[in-house]
Amino acid sequence: LASENERIYIAVDAMGGDFAPHEIVKGAIQGARKYNVGLDLVGHPDKIRVELEKHANQGIEIRITEALDEVDMGESPVVALRRKKNASIAVAARQVKQGKAHAMVAAGSTGAAMAAALLNIGRIKGIERPAIGVALPTLRGLPTLMIDGGANMDSEPHLMVQFAALGHAYMQGMHGLPRPKVGLLNVGSEKGKGNTFCKEAFELLEANSAFYFAGNAEGRDFFIGDFDVIVCDGFAGNIALKSAEGMATMFGKLLKSHLMKNGWTKLVGLLAKPMLDKVKHHLDHEYVGGALLLGIDGICVIAHGGSSALAIENAMRVAISGVKGNVLGKMQVVTQESLNASTHVVASGQEAVLTGE
Amino acid sequence: LASENERIYIAVDAMGGDFAPHEIVKGAIQGARKYNVGLDLVGHPDKIRVELEKHANQGIEIRITEALDEVDMGESPVVALRRKKNASIAVAARQVKQGKAHAMVAAGSTGAAMAAALLNIGRIKGIERPAIGVALPTLRGLPTLMIDGGANMDSEPHLMVQFAALGHAYMQGMHGLPRPKVGLLNVGSEKGKGNTFCKEAFELLEANSAFYFAGNAEGRDFFIGDFDVIVCDGFAGNIALKSAEGMATMFGKLLKSHLMKNGWTKLVGLLAKPMLDKVKHHLDHEYVGGALLLGIDGICVIAHGGSSALAIENAMRVAISGVKGNVLGKMQVVTQESLNASTHVVASGQEAVLTGE
Repeated sequence: LASENERIYIAVDAMGGDFAPHEIVKGAIQGARKYNVGLDLVGHPDKIRVELEKHANQGIEIRITEALDEVDMGESPVVALRRKKNASIAVAARQVKQGKAHAMVAAGSTGAAMAAALLNIGRIKGIERPAIGVALPTLRGLPTLMIDGGANMDSEPHLMVQFAALGHAYMQGMHGLPRPKVGLLNVGSEKGKGNTFCKEAFELLEANSAFYFAGNAEGRDFFIGDFDVIVCDGFAGNIALKSAEGMATMFGKLLKSHLMKNGWTKLVGLLAKPMLDKVKHHLDHEYVGGALLLGIDGICVIAHGGSSALAIENAMRVAISGVKGNVLGKMQVVTQESLNASTHVVASGQEAVLTGE
Repeated sequence: LASENERIYIAVDAMGGDFAPHEIVKGAIQGARKYNVGLDLVGHPDKIRVELEKHANQGIEIRITEALDEVDMGESPVVALRRKKNASIAVAARQVKQGKAHAMVAAGSTGAAMAAALLNIGRIKGIERPAIGVALPTLRGLPTLMIDGGANMDSEPHLMVQFAALGHAYMQGMHGLPRPKVGLLNVGSEKGKGNTFCKEAFELLEANSAFYFAGNAEGRDFFIGDFDVIVCDGFAGNIALKSAEGMATMFGKLLKSHLMKNGWTKLVGLLAKPMLDKVKHHLDHEYVGGALLLGIDGICVIAHGGSSALAIENAMRVAISGVKGNVLGKMQVVTQESLNASTHVVASGQEAVLTGE
């Protein structure tokens, strides 16, 4: 943890993402200047230095940490990372593990980032499966956190309790909410709705007092509801994210095609462009920043593979908020509280059985 | 089936939906006039007659079929429909079963419509679980059919094969596609992606020659892909639909709020309104019409509970297309072909074992 006066260092995987190292180094410098933090650029030193020379970086504390292994496209990230100990994403994770950086930022595949974080940092005690926390833009201003955004397929119901605890800590730490409202993704709001998975998860969430479980949420609540956290299986999370993305793309393209019809509509489109840009900005992943790998015993932010410098700058903002809001410490605490709350339920169950004898 | 010169009759549940009987009867008359079909209005005769008197209906063949039982709000539809044999939705379904109407249209809960259809019409031979087919608006013009839109929770993988056959028949019958492209909803396009359910369903779909299985689809493909049919579990379908709906609502409201900021933006908004209305029209459920209950041994269209007269008119269009496109006959045929195709695979497997001995 960063003490009051200690400079925050962010380890940035300079080699990951479609536009690495150029956009990554550029965005990292922008973010370091904007948020007044130190940089730990991880990757091929010569390539990083070439990029650094392109940008004014006086006044920014920059370290370069060598990492020469490269993970090829098409390699399974988990297999590759077991073999290539010095891949930049693995080295960035170890900088966090060893306390040399307060958080890491990497662009690219979430699978690779999760594998690197698991192998080199490990899980928070009491968390079986770390998950991807995606902060979604909403109408109410404050984002709604989706957890799991796609790390775990075939989740078991009891993992929803762990995700609820992690999401609770995220919204407390990042947004200062005293008592985040946690929902379970389901097909209807009433208790008893949904599939077997949801029914079991509902019971477990309802029985746990470590966080505020407010009941079932629906797909639309990711964007227009008043839940702070919505927990779901990674499969369902991925479907929800990509369906919404498809709808937004279609909406935008339809509007554009109607505005491009003739001279008059083109003029209207030109006049409406600033307003449309504001909507786009609100929805855009560049603005939203990166997703946190929740349940990992360190602050790890994963940005889109196609990240521009601006996206990296925003991912740094997310990482720095995570550090300053002590999201890690909060996750550790609430996970233990949640385990104790569960144990309590199990214990009373056992007691009842003993009394029954 | 409607022979060449026989008049098509549509049984309309006049009592179902939030704005029944007023909007329903109004929309039914509009639809009957527009598409030149006969009406079989099912419900309370006096209430229907009151509505009929409000609208010019000369030249339209109208029958009134009495149905006096009412299903109360909050009653479980399945339980209520077992008891109340003369609920309007049940009587409408029996009109189809008895050949007195070629299709039925009902507004309200899909659960009630599915229960009424199952109890009074039954399933197509070879179909274990009928499903909801939702035709989604896309960028390519032609809709993409989602099946299952939410009828079945906890579907087993082999049901995806039945849904694929039903979806194939729908797109052939409704849109004249010779070889509809069927996808499986998953988290990525490559084979081997996803949860256990998807992996098993993929193998079964790939092994069946009764339809063209084109591989995995993703959430965004509902709106911007080039699949004709996407099969999924009802839970995942519901999540995808409602997430996309939430995104569309947010997009529209954000745009509106930016356009309402000041006098200038309001003027731009006024100028842009016709284009925005066209996008809304494209996405709106009033335009899209109703969902077909696929796998039921009759053409049943369920419209939104909040259906206006226009929504009912569009649901009638869907029902009439279903009748004229012989979707029912096509579903019966491809379901048998699909069963035979599966048997074929099992048979060669057994043969191999016998040869091996």
